[in-house]
Amino acid sequence: MPILNKDMTLCISLAGRPSNIGTRFHNHLYDELGLNFIYKAFTTDDIAAAIGGVRALGIRGCSVSMPFKEAVIPLVDVVEPSAAAIESINTIVNDDGTLTASNTDYEAVAELLARHEVEPSASVLVRGSGGMAKAVVAAFRGAGFDDLTVLARNREAGAALAEKYGYRFASELPDAGHAVIVNVTPLGMAGQDEDALAFPLEHVAAAGTVVDVVAFPSETPLVRAARETGASLITGADVIALQAARQFARYTGVTPSREQVERASAFSRA
Amino acid sequence: MPILNKDMTLCISLAGRPSNIGTRFHNHLYDELGLNFIYKAFTTDDIAAAIGGVRALGIRGCSVSMPFKEAVIPLVDVVEPSAAAIESINTIVNDDGTLTASNTDYEAVAELLARHEVEPSASVLVRGSGGMAKAVVAAFRGAGFDDLTVLARNREAGAALAEKYGYRFASELPDAGHAVIVNVTPLGMAGQDEDALAFPLEHVAAAGTVVDVVAFPSETPLVRAARETGASLITGADVIALQAARQFARYTGVTPSREQVERASAFSRA
Repeated sequence: MPILNKDMTLCISLAGRPSNIGTRFHNHLYDELGLNFIYKAFTTDDIAAAIGGVRALGIRGCSVSMPFKEAVIPLVDVVEPSAAAIESINTIVNDDGTLTASNTDYEAVAELLARHEVEPSASVLVRGSGGMAKAVVAAFRGAGFDDLTVLARNREAGAALAEKYGYRFASELPDAGHAVIVNVTPLGMAGQDEDALAFPLEHVAAAGTVVDVVAFPSETPLVRAARETGASLITGADVIALQAARQFARYTGVTPSREQVERASAFSRA
Repeated sequence: MPILNKDMTLCISLAGRPSNIGTRFHNHLYDELGLNFIYKAFTTDDIAAAIGGVRALGIRGCSVSMPFKEAVIPLVDVVEPSAAAIESINTIVNDDGTLTASNTDYEAVAELLARHEVEPSASVLVRGSGGMAKAVVAAFRGAGFDDLTVLARNREAGAALAEKYGYRFASELPDAGHAVIVNVTPLGMAGQDEDALAFPLEHVAAAGTVVDVVAFPSETPLVRAARETGASLITGADVIALQAARQFARYTGVTPSREQVERASAFSRA
């Protein structure tokens, strides 16, 4: 790290329960790229005053996590399409007091689908109906996928999400056979659902592409099962690293290489 | 520096024109003492929102410099006597959203007068009538000095300051012979007044104690002149280091040793 100095540009995150991943990811890249920036995670019990502080203190960038992604919408000046399309902000850039918001989760999922060359004609099964599920489903819609089923225990949220993007809703697990299966629930996440497999093995075996947005750990039961079948795999670690890299580029004006992002991602999770 | 992490406690400063001294001083001591803190200077054009941000983001400490020292008074919850006595805040401590304000300039001057064992019966000549002059004059009053003259070009501010603490005002330089002479003007400060001697050599020669609060450079013409006469000397570097050390203790709960403060001060000015 360089010696901290008054001219460093500060970027922050706001989350109900801050993790260390963003702080380590961004600071590692600042160091590798020699940028005079620092990054630190915060929480708050007054999101309006916190965003007011971002503006008044000239904090350059603010990553927004649960439960603030919708609450910040009226607090910014410009909402880019990536955030407006899903009514969810995860990135705020401060240009001399003008706050511009976007959603790099949406962008990251869209870019990963493109990188993995998933055919838009494929049938897709998405499990989950929360904020991140919205980003994922919208990204499939944006990429031209027509055949998608939203599977959710929460009937109201799941049906609303499916309807919003012109897709099917299912409250019960459909038969196996989808080419793409996507977990956007906490199943497999560190904590009480750590051992849960988000889809039966039969569904995993039938899928050519498996997506799991659980970020921690990245090796969930679903990811391990997909590695065994040889499916094309997009992990939560991939999504969080790519969305963070896009935030990084917006905050600093510097686009890190894919190798630099991978190194920062590995460091952030160590 | 330790690797930046989400649990670091942030302290900041707010100033119209931030310097690097506080940022280097505090971060150097955090490093030496192994504290998980970071410190960075900021400016703002919205002091109310900035203090709201301090509260909402859980920023632990906020050092306040010109021109915000009076403006923050209505924005805090508790004003300690050191700040209330001079209606000027330079330190805010945030305890879970409760902001407590103090003035460590006042405290530092008072402590330095005590350390140098300046006799309260001594005659004192203070040049200046700005915010820092108020802290200095109040410190002399608090230490029991009765014979003090405020010398200031600004007749209104000077007379008001003298009257507030029961001292004399002079708009013209009195004859030499004061045991203590104190410069609280920018004379000798880096910039256009760098070569200016704040008091004539005759006054310096007559003084047993010379105080110069110009912090940068610390070797002003007045300080150099006082070194030649062998007067007891309190420099702006002494004042700024001690007031910063008292802020440090309030923010962290750790009181650095005098040697640690001297090392941090030297580092901050390098």
